[in-house]
Amino acid sequence: MTTPLRLGIAGLGTVGVGVVKILQQHGDLLRARTGRDITLSAVSARSQKKDRGVDLSGYAWEDDPVALAARDDVDVLVELMGGTDGPAKAATRAALARGKHVVTANKAMMAVHGQMLAEQAEAKGVALRFEAAVAGGIPVVKALTEGLAGNRVTRIMGVMNGTCNYILTRMESAGLSYAKVFKEAADLGYLEADPQLDVGGIDAGHKLALLASIAFGTQVDFDSVQLEGIDRITIEDITRAGDMGYRIKLLGVAQMSSGRGLEQRMTPCLVPRKSPLGQLRNATNMVVIDGDSSGQIVLRGAGAGEGPTASAVMSDVIDIARGLILPVFGQPATTLVGSTPAVASAPAAYYLRLSLLDKPGALARIATALGDAGISIDRMRQYGHASGAAPVLIVTHKATRDALDHAVAKFDSTGVLSAAPVAIRIEEV
Amino acid sequence: MTTPLRLGIAGLGTVGVGVVKILQQHGDLLRARTGRDITLSAVSARSQKKDRGVDLSGYAWEDDPVALAARDDVDVLVELMGGTDGPAKAATRAALARGKHVVTANKAMMAVHGQMLAEQAEAKGVALRFEAAVAGGIPVVKALTEGLAGNRVTRIMGVMNGTCNYILTRMESAGLSYAKVFKEAADLGYLEADPQLDVGGIDAGHKLALLASIAFGTQVDFDSVQLEGIDRITIEDITRAGDMGYRIKLLGVAQMSSGRGLEQRMTPCLVPRKSPLGQLRNATNMVVIDGDSSGQIVLRGAGAGEGPTASAVMSDVIDIARGLILPVFGQPATTLVGSTPAVASAPAAYYLRLSLLDKPGALARIATALGDAGISIDRMRQYGHASGAAPVLIVTHKATRDALDHAVAKFDSTGVLSAAPVAIRIEEV
Repeated sequence: MTTPLRLGIAGLGTVGVGVVKILQQHGDLLRARTGRDITLSAVSARSQKKDRGVDLSGYAWEDDPVALAARDDVDVLVELMGGTDGPAKAATRAALARGKHVVTANKAMMAVHGQMLAEQAEAKGVALRFEAAVAGGIPVVKALTEGLAGNRVTRIMGVMNGTCNYILTRMESAGLSYAKVFKEAADLGYLEADPQLDVGGIDAGHKLALLASIAFGTQVDFDSVQLEGIDRITIEDITRAGDMGYRIKLLGVAQMSSGRGLEQRMTPCLVPRKSPLGQLRNATNMVVIDGDSSGQIVLRGAGAGEGPTASAVMSDVIDIARGLILPVFGQPATTLVGSTPAVASAPAAYYLRLSLLDKPGALARIATALGDAGISIDRMRQYGHASGAAPVLIVTHKATRDALDHAVAKFDSTGVLSAAPVAIRIEEV
Repeated sequence: MTTPLRLGIAGLGTVGVGVVKILQQHGDLLRARTGRDITLSAVSARSQKKDRGVDLSGYAWEDDPVALAARDDVDVLVELMGGTDGPAKAATRAALARGKHVVTANKAMMAVHGQMLAEQAEAKGVALRFEAAVAGGIPVVKALTEGLAGNRVTRIMGVMNGTCNYILTRMESAGLSYAKVFKEAADLGYLEADPQLDVGGIDAGHKLALLASIAFGTQVDFDSVQLEGIDRITIEDITRAGDMGYRIKLLGVAQMSSGRGLEQRMTPCLVPRKSPLGQLRNATNMVVIDGDSSGQIVLRGAGAGEGPTASAVMSDVIDIARGLILPVFGQPATTLVGSTPAVASAPAAYYLRLSLLDKPGALARIATALGDAGISIDRMRQYGHASGAAPVLIVTHKATRDALDHAVAKFDSTGVLSAAPVAIRIEEV
C-alpha cells in the first residue's frame, strides 16, 4: 500500500476547508500513521472565486461534483455539500458506481437513502463512511460499530444538536425567553438556513436514526423517529425543572424492546442536573451508549465546527487509507432487518406543570384525575399564588404515555386549570 | 472470510470468564457483525477444577499457556493472565512467533515490553491488541489510534484507576481517613494483590504510558512516568480543596512540548469540581483527549470488571475477525521514536495548605517567600485558629514546579509553620 490515496472534495464550506487544512498541515503525520501519502486531486464547490482562506491552486477544479466523482485521479469522494438529494446524492452514487470510496458528513442523505447507498457500496466492495455525520468530532460511529461490537446495545441516548443545547443553556443562564435566544442564535449564524432542522429536532433525529441502525442491526428508519422540537420550551419550565433537580435537554433515545419494537425519540426530556447529560452546557454534544457487557459508555465533544467535523472526516479517510473496509452499518446492508416502530412504549416518570386556579379542592381534583389514570405522585410542589393561579409542579412515578395522556385529558374537565398543562418526560440516565 | 476465527484463552479470572460468556451468548450477533464464526478452541488456567460458573466442557484444556498458544486450532491467543513477564510474556511471544494474533488485557506487559512485542508482531504481520489494558470498557485505544488519527494530539488526561477514584470519592462522601477507606477497599476485594499497583499509581501509569505512545508516536516509556500515589492525601485536603471549588483526583497527564520533550505524570491533582473530571465519582474511569482539530473529546465508562473488560477484549477479537490489522501503536513500531522525558515542565497553578502559627506577621512571611520565588497569589483563605495553628489555603497563579519547590523550601526558615506544607498541582481541564 505505498501508492497515494487520492481524494476529491465536493463542497468547500467550513468542513471542506477544515479537511484541506489537515491535509496541508499534517502530511507527515498522516504518512506515518497510514504508511502512504493522502493527497487531494480535485475540489468542487459552487463558486471558484470565493476566498476561503486556504490555497487551492494545487488542486484541479470541477464545477460539477458528479464530474469530480468520476475523475480517474480520485479514489475517494469526500462529500461535504449536504442535502438529502440533489448533487450530494448524485455525486455519491456516481462515485460508488465507479467503485470509489465515499466519505460523507451528510446525515440527511444517509438517514433517508442510507440503505440504498449502503447496498450499492457493499455490492462494489467499497467503503461508504459517515463518522462526520453524527456528533461532529466525537468518534461515535466507530465506537458503536467497532469498539462496542461485542455488545448487545440496550439503549442509545444523546444530545446531538449543539444549537438546541446552546439555546436551552442560554435560556437558563440568562433567564431569557425562547424567542429572544432563538433570535440571538440566528444573529450569531448558529442556525441552519431552515431553522427547523435544528430547533425542530430533524437534524438530531437523522443522527439518532443512523446510530440506531448500527446498534440494533435494523434498516435506517428516520420516518419513525418521534420528533418534537424545543420551540415550546418556556423559561418557566426550565426554572421549575431546575427547582426539582432537573435540566431540560433535546434528548435522543433509541431502544429496542423485545416484543415492542424499536423506539426512537428526539424530544425535550428532563434529565437529572447532576448526571453527565445534565451537566452538558452550550453547544457540546454527548452520546451515551448502554451495552450489555460494557455498561454505560459516555462520549462527549464538539458536535460541529470546522476542526471537529474535519477530524471525523479524516478518521474515515485514514481508515480507508489503511485498508479498513467494513459494511456501512456494521453488518451487510442486505442483512439489516426492518423494525416495528414502538412509540414511547417504555413507562417513564413525568414532570407536570399546572396553573391551578385558587378554588377549594382544586388540587384534590388533579390528584384524583391522576389516581384514576393509575398514576401516582412522587413529588409535588405548589408555589405562591400569582394573578389568581398557582404554579403546581408534579413529578410522577413511572407511567405509560397512554395513562398520562388519559389523565391530562381529564384535567380539562376539572375546571381548576387556568392554562393548558405541560408534561415532559423524565429520562432515566 | 467464511472460515471461523478460533480463539485460545489463557487466564480464566473474571475477564476470561466474561469473554467466554460473550462467546457463548452472542454467537449470532458476532456472526452478523463479522461475517464468520468466532469459536473457542482451548483454554488454560492454573486450576482446571475450579468452578467458574460457565460450562468449559466444550473446550480443550491446556495446563501450559505456551502450549495453548502453539495449538494448531488457535488463531488468536487471548492473554488474560497478567504479569509483566512469566507465562504471559512467554505465551505472547510463542503465539507471535507462530504468526498468531494476540489480544491482551495486560497493561504491565505492554507498558514494559510493548516495543519489543510490537516489533515481533509487525514482523510477522499479525495483530497485537490491547484495548482491554486501558480503561476497561471504554474504547479509548481505538478512539486514539483510529477515531482521532487525523489529529496532532496535544494532551491526554485521565482518571484510569477505578480503585483510587473510589477511595477518594468515599473519603469525601463519608468524611473518612485514607487509612479507613483503604481498609474498606481491601475488605471489599477492590485492591490488587500488591496494593501499590493501585494506590501507588503504577497500574494507571502503565495505561498512561501506552496511550502516550499512540498519541505522540513515541516508544512506550513507562520508566519516565512521574508516579505519586494517593496514600498521602488527607481528608483535610479533600475538604479544603472542596471549599475552594476543586476535587482531588489521581490524574494522568501526558503532553508533548516542543523543545521540552514528553511529560508523563500520574499524580494527585486538583481539578475543578464542575468539570467532567471533577464530577467523576466512584470507580468510573475517564479519558480526556485534546486534539488540534477535534478539540476536547471526553470518554467515560467502567474501567474494570468482568463485562466491561470482556467487551474491550471482544472489540479487538472482532477487529481481527474482520481483517482489520493495524500497527500495534498506530504506526510501525520501528518508526516510533525515543522521547526526552520532561518532568512537570509546564507551569501550573498550585494549591497550598499551610498550618500557620499564631504569630504577628506570620502570613506576611509566607507571602514574602512566595513573592521572592516569583509566585503570585490568586486566592487565599485563612480559617479560624484551632490548637494554636490556623489552616491557610493558597491558590497560586501559574508557576513552575522549580519556583514552587524554591518557595516551599523557604517556608521552613520562616519559623511560622507548625507542620510541613502540602502542595498539589491544579490541572487545567
